[in-house]
Amino acid sequence: MDVKDFPFVSKRENLTDILVDHELAALGDAYVNFAYSLMLSRKMGRPVGRKVDSSALALALRKAGLRRFLPSRTDRHRQADAAESLVVYAWLTSAISLEETVQIIEKEETVEDAFAQLLQAIMERLSLPHQKV
Amino acid sequence: MDVKDFPFVSKRENLTDILVDHELAALGDAYVNFAYSLMLSRKMGRPVGRKVDSSALALALRKAGLRRFLPSRTDRHRQADAAESLVVYAWLTSAISLEETVQIIEKEETVEDAFAQLLQAIMERLSLPHQKV
Repeated sequence: MDVKDFPFVSKRENLTDILVDHELAALGDAYVNFAYSLMLSRKMGRPVGRKVDSSALALALRKAGLRRFLPSRTDRHRQADAAESLVVYAWLTSAISLEETVQIIEKEETVEDAFAQLLQAIMERLSLPHQKV
Repeated sequence: MDVKDFPFVSKRENLTDILVDHELAALGDAYVNFAYSLMLSRKMGRPVGRKVDSSALALALRKAGLRRFLPSRTDRHRQADAAESLVVYAWLTSAISLEETVQIIEKEETVEDAFAQLLQAIMERLSLPHQKV
């Protein structure tokens, strides 16, 4: 899937814009659940479909040091949304592939560590002008 | 994503085995929702996350002529599951890519026609010994 098919992604120019984008979070939710289900399927040796818990995603965002790029009153649900937005943004812009996503999240023991690692890997690959609100 | 990472898919040898596999349907649900969300995002020019309605998937299965491979008492919910199982089986075995999935479903006007077309395209690509229960 190439970035050229998604002209809307190029509109986001800084990290906070990506993190607070609720539409991007909705698509990100579908991506995150699919990647997580794939990882579990590979690990368990049978097909598994599972949603990632919001509180685990919110914790992952904080562990990855990204909480400070969100407005101070952002609740945990919106913190989870922010994680989903950034992950799918990285995939849409080809900063990370689905295969890489699965490989990164399968290395950690807990869901929050898995996604914290993923978010950190993504931050290393993206070169965005960080902007604090 | 290569089939070699999912040794469990090779165990399914006939169409009915795939269609009635509830574990496969759970993973398929995540795949179908992600592909559908991507298609809508591309079409609408903004990120969208949306689930595919079960009744549309069940109708798609019947339109694609696959109802006869399921036990006669299979309800609509299980018919939708069957569609999800077959779609993700095709992706897991590399019979269809995510990009092709999106391209096929974006051509039709209704959700049921989109997935009926997808199921038909998959049936043309898979060479399974069909087996009626």
